[in-house]
Amino acid sequence: MRLRFDRMMNDRCGSPKIIRTAILTLSDKGAKGERADESGMVIREMILTIGADVRHYEVLPDDQDRITTVLKSLVDTGEIDLILTTGGTGVAPRDVTPEATRIVLERELPGMMEAMRSSSLHKTPHAMLSRGVAGIRKQTLIVNLPGSPRAVRENLAVILPALSHAIDKIKGDPADCGVH
Amino acid sequence: MRLRFDRMMNDRCGSPKIIRTAILTLSDKGAKGERADESGMVIREMILTIGADVRHYEVLPDDQDRITTVLKSLVDTGEIDLILTTGGTGVAPRDVTPEATRIVLERELPGMMEAMRSSSLHKTPHAMLSRGVAGIRKQTLIVNLPGSPRAVRENLAVILPALSHAIDKIKGDPADCGVH
Amino acid sequence: MRLRFDRMMNDRCGSPKIIRTAILTLSDKGAKGERADESGMVIREMILTIGADVRHYEVLPDDQDRITTVLKSLVDTGEIDLILTTGGTGVAPRDVTPEATRIVLERELPGMMEAMRSSSLHKTPHAMLSRGVAGIRKQTLIVNLPGSPRAVRENLAVILPALSHAIDKIKGDPADCGVH
Repeated sequence: MRLRFDRMMNDRCGSPKIIRTAILTLSDKGAKGERADESGMVIREMILTIGADVRHYEVLPDDQDRITTVLKSLVDTGEIDLILTTGGTGVAPRDVTPEATRIVLERELPGMMEAMRSSSLHKTPHAMLSRGVAGIRKQTLIVNLPGSPRAVRENLAVILPALSHAIDKIKGDPADCGVH
Repeated sequence: MRLRFDRMMNDRCGSPKIIRTAILTLSDKGAKGERADESGMVIREMILTIGADVRHYEVLPDDQDRITTVLKSLVDTGEIDLILTTGGTGVAPRDVTPEATRIVLERELPGMMEAMRSSSLHKTPHAMLSRGVAGIRKQTLIVNLPGSPRAVRENLAVILPALSHAIDKIKGDPADCGVH
Repeated sequence: MRLRFDRMMNDRCGSPKIIRTAILTLSDKGAKGERADESGMVIREMILTIGADVRHYEVLPDDQDRITTVLKSLVDTGEIDLILTTGGTGVAPRDVTPEATRIVLERELPGMMEAMRSSSLHKTPHAMLSRGVAGIRKQTLIVNLPGSPRAVRENLAVILPALSHAIDKIKGDPADCGVH
């Protein structure tokens, strides 16, 4: 059984390797304790199904510089494979998550956002107002999710099947597991 | 009846509030008076249905610096909620509307263009050559529409259901009217 | 027959004019001769059907600066209408084709990548990890295709119906052949 487990850990394609994850909730109300972070809990629950381990969780106000600083420092620990943010992706004056995120990205990954928006658009035309970005800094994948629990659930479900493979590849896995 | 009208004016979600709009037609031929601006008239006719009031209308040549200058000055009046441009979004040498627009945007809104292109693609593969951008400067939403009357009609129809909500949110409406 | 041929050469919409093409395969293994360039051959075979003539073909390692230099010099000859690259569009550390390409683009063409990714997404969620870009430098259209032969075949098939028209327009063809 030990051997079999090791083999599973090294099976690079669709494997149950641990994904060291940080969840960042961006919400002025949440940061002041005026709103329970239901969206953060939805993320936690969903990513457990792909073998993620939540190593960091934080609720921050919609402050662009502060979000950028936290994203950078999480990546720089070298101990986070995936950062999922929720909130601040809309068009309101305080929605600055995409701007705070884009600054830290070394390589953008537009296809993830296109896939999420395209899927959400079948449910509501307001999906086209979601401005989130996704991309890579060093060996960390960063993805902006919308703010509402329902939108988080719908959007995360779209990218969930690609996350493990993406993180394997970002970390330099040389195996040929998929098309890209 | 007065009270009821006031209530309608303050009903933030899907409300009949006035949207102060500018229409900018970008066309060398149009600016020289060699072509009637059918596309501008299509825009005018369609946005009336969502309570827009056209406060400014202008036909400009495909001159990047001049387009940028006009976009900035329209936003800076503080009296325009929405700028819709038509023309100059293709791949011809004189098609510079996206470049002229991107410079003035503080926050990009890629989902609107994705939604329009994805919809048009069902009709013609040439839709993938439309390079328009959308985004926000201060409290003004700016959207590039294609040049032909038919493409304007098809594309504007795609974003029309999201425009009122977008403009409410951009102006700081705190109500929870939709998903993003 | 001579006259008829000339007429065909000048028929601007969907015409069989020659498209002077360069194929650039980006692959560390390919550049070291450790892998046959099947993807490059798929491109060559497919673009022959739209009247392309392959004037340049090269296999380069995934070296960002070198890719940028080659792209620029190909454009600057003034003798290449279309550059198709394959490889280096994923999320692995050595995948730098989009970054190498974006630098040389004067005008981006996001719709081509959206169309390809959207189509591929129906086949595999990994399609959302393709980070390729497309755009124009001077009078040359540059498009990043994925690396695998199967993905090249699927993706190139999506944009193939728009390529001739795009290149005509980029070169300043004033005819009104399509919607954009």
